[in-house]
Amino acid sequence: MSQLVERLRAIVGPANVMTEGDLGAWEQDWRKRVRGKAFAVVRPGSTAEVAQVVKACVEAGHSIVPQGGNTGLVVGSTPDASGQQVVLSLARMSAVRETDADNLTMTVEAGCILQAVQEAAQSAGLFFPLSLAAEGSCTIGGNLATNAGGTQVVRYGNARELCLGLEVVTAQGEVWNGLTGLRKDNTGYDLRDLFIGCEGTLGVITAATLKLYPPPSATLTAWAAVPSVEHAVRLLALAHRHLGAGLTGFEMMGQFALGLVARHFTQMRVPFGESSPYGVLLENSDHESELHARSQFERLLEAALEDGCITDAVVAENLTQARQLWHIRESIPLAQAEEGLNIKHDISVPVSRIPAFCRETDALLARELPGVRLVNFGHLGDGNLHYNVQAPEGADSAAFLRDQEERINGLVYDQVNRFAGSISAEHGVGSLKVEKLPHYKSPVALDLMRSLKRALDPQNVLNPGRVVEL
Amino acid sequence: MSQLVERLRAIVGPANVMTEGDLGAWEQDWRKRVRGKAFAVVRPGSTAEVAQVVKACVEAGHSIVPQGGNTGLVVGSTPDASGQQVVLSLARMSAVRETDADNLTMTVEAGCILQAVQEAAQSAGLFFPLSLAAEGSCTIGGNLATNAGGTQVVRYGNARELCLGLEVVTAQGEVWNGLTGLRKDNTGYDLRDLFIGCEGTLGVITAATLKLYPPPSATLTAWAAVPSVEHAVRLLALAHRHLGAGLTGFEMMGQFALGLVARHFTQMRVPFGESSPYGVLLENSDHESELHARSQFERLLEAALEDGCITDAVVAENLTQARQLWHIRESIPLAQAEEGLNIKHDISVPVSRIPAFCRETDALLARELPGVRLVNFGHLGDGNLHYNVQAPEGADSAAFLRDQEERINGLVYDQVNRFAGSISAEHGVGSLKVEKLPHYKSPVALDLMRSLKRALDPQNVLNPGRVVEL
Repeated sequence: MSQLVERLRAIVGPANVMTEGDLGAWEQDWRKRVRGKAFAVVRPGSTAEVAQVVKACVEAGHSIVPQGGNTGLVVGSTPDASGQQVVLSLARMSAVRETDADNLTMTVEAGCILQAVQEAAQSAGLFFPLSLAAEGSCTIGGNLATNAGGTQVVRYGNARELCLGLEVVTAQGEVWNGLTGLRKDNTGYDLRDLFIGCEGTLGVITAATLKLYPPPSATLTAWAAVPSVEHAVRLLALAHRHLGAGLTGFEMMGQFALGLVARHFTQMRVPFGESSPYGVLLENSDHESELHARSQFERLLEAALEDGCITDAVVAENLTQARQLWHIRESIPLAQAEEGLNIKHDISVPVSRIPAFCRETDALLARELPGVRLVNFGHLGDGNLHYNVQAPEGADSAAFLRDQEERINGLVYDQVNRFAGSISAEHGVGSLKVEKLPHYKSPVALDLMRSLKRALDPQNVLNPGRVVEL
Repeated sequence: MSQLVERLRAIVGPANVMTEGDLGAWEQDWRKRVRGKAFAVVRPGSTAEVAQVVKACVEAGHSIVPQGGNTGLVVGSTPDASGQQVVLSLARMSAVRETDADNLTMTVEAGCILQAVQEAAQSAGLFFPLSLAAEGSCTIGGNLATNAGGTQVVRYGNARELCLGLEVVTAQGEVWNGLTGLRKDNTGYDLRDLFIGCEGTLGVITAATLKLYPPPSATLTAWAAVPSVEHAVRLLALAHRHLGAGLTGFEMMGQFALGLVARHFTQMRVPFGESSPYGVLLENSDHESELHARSQFERLLEAALEDGCITDAVVAENLTQARQLWHIRESIPLAQAEEGLNIKHDISVPVSRIPAFCRETDALLARELPGVRLVNFGHLGDGNLHYNVQAPEGADSAAFLRDQEERINGLVYDQVNRFAGSISAEHGVGSLKVEKLPHYKSPVALDLMRSLKRALDPQNVLNPGRVVEL
């Protein structure tokens, strides 16, 4: 047994150092695009153990890949093929350390599953708004390391905006205790936001102090039929004006995306069938009452009908109906998978430019790849679209993915760049997009990123090769 | 004339390089605590000029002190006494570059006065929430460089949370164009938040893309009489639950602070006179109507009366009355000045711990400095208090300040530290608190800060000695 394995076993206990058997759960990414080979998978049970593990790995010359729920979509939390990287799983560190209701904060460990965070907030009579498809298995540490987005960003912001303080193990194996519950603290550089979104390349997040909110008294969901993307953007502006901070969700879905749901999940009823070019799902959260929420929603929808930006709308009558509407939205990725492999994007563009972006890019792809089908849906309220591309009807989707992915990514990313957008809105860079960054970020930005990486991780031991290449 | 002065004149024009005459407006801090001596005051008119000025100064071996409105309270934007530092004033860069209503963003140059930013948003039918006492003369660049707070933080966050993108000139004189209007962008490290709050020590902010909001339909102000700090915290929790995001202001003021206003500004009528130990000013912003705002406010205040956390309350009947109430709050610092010099603090503590902090610290100071008077007021909604200390009645306040400031700062800061608070909540570090940080921040945090400073400004040319000492 190697000296490092022995030392790791001494730190975390033999049961928590895995080197044999099927390590696929840690070695393979969520979308099963890449399978790596770990030197070992280590599962520390405390911050002190994480620090010791980092020190041991650094001294032995092994780099470290921090891992939460391993649900990331950009191959950022699995080891490379060398067999030399240590996977540092935070899964065992899942405690809720403290809930402070009067301060509207909660301190949790990195390995806490997002849904468990939501539930702990709920038991304290409060609300933690971060919500995304993988919430049953992703961890809050991973959410913060990747600055996760999701469906409530239009009101509450990304993971970044929901975090007040962090505890981090540095690349030197030191513990930075920045677990503050303060809303205001101007005593130096913003270390917190440097670690948030760094995808484990600058430090290992071990715990976080999160913002909580009073739960809304009522949350209502509506579905609107919308003639075009332009009309959807107009509806968004109206919704901001009518609902203010009550607008907690604004999802747009194209006709083809909804058609896939109807085709593959025949039990689901898509409102207004396939008669409308776009559907928009709106959520209104109210601090007064359900009655008030409903009247506000109705006022908005009447104004939108009058404006002409929607052609029809329905407000869910009860929680079951609301869940059914959200379920349609959430089933789009699954319906796509049923239809065959496809080329996924996670882009953002300023909201005001989304109509022109979609119009031009739709036309460009139709011209370059006749018959191609666009699964366009996403968080329009944040300017974030999952602008996915499916093979032409009847085509071999595996061959399409293999032959066209690079080219289509290039076409879409160039368009995103022209419209001052981002090629990774909420999923991060990982290793999947690291080679793309130099094409779409300025040399000054990349230089700054490299300087920061070298400053905080001069030996390049934390998740090397991810986010930024040195 | 020195070569550097010649070169600076060539870059920005002779009229915009000042080396003679009274440079007090640039050399002296707002509170007139320290007067430095500038090598020159340079006023570039464009980002390209800022970059050239930085390069010229670096090559000539002169360090740079970026300056906005020079309204900071911690001596962070004036030159030291060496006569060698170049003051880089952003005042001439005051353009609103772009307003994008559909994207709810606006791009402005660093030298734009905060009030001009607010007004530009208003002309576009939108709302920029940052608001603070100096808004008529401070600049948005300074607000971002110091991560300013103010009175709307409870709803909208600090300056940090109101900024989506930045343009920055680095210590190497390169321009980083990070002027994005995106709500979601996970393509690498968060450079923006590193420059925000760095007080000009890591880069010079030249422009910013700001978040705008639809303006509320009605904004109402109320004043509540509160028996104790504990009761004020209970009222805050009730206000969060009743008003949700409608709660846009929550200011607490102690009896003595209000008494000073009544004493020195006899034309002002403090509600409930001096009968109540604390007054709380609440603001409710509503997206529906004034009628709705009023009914919500009344529901809250009835619930608070029933709960016992307030003894009386009044809602302003009109804008004039609302302004009068805010004017009382804003007059506290002036009333203090009328009463004599005093020792100012800008601290934060988790909201839940504020009652115990105040109880213990009030008692400690009364014990250590008999007769001392506490001017306790601030943004309770954010846990931020201006816990100021005034000399005993009749004492020589100048002598008190001279003899007791260090000691009282020590007593208060140690208490803040015990309660997991911050010794600078919204004003920053500057040179005034830079020597305090090592006592109240962990060595790991300070090491991280030094690493970042060395990485981005290895020659220590940007505002040296501020925020972090190398």
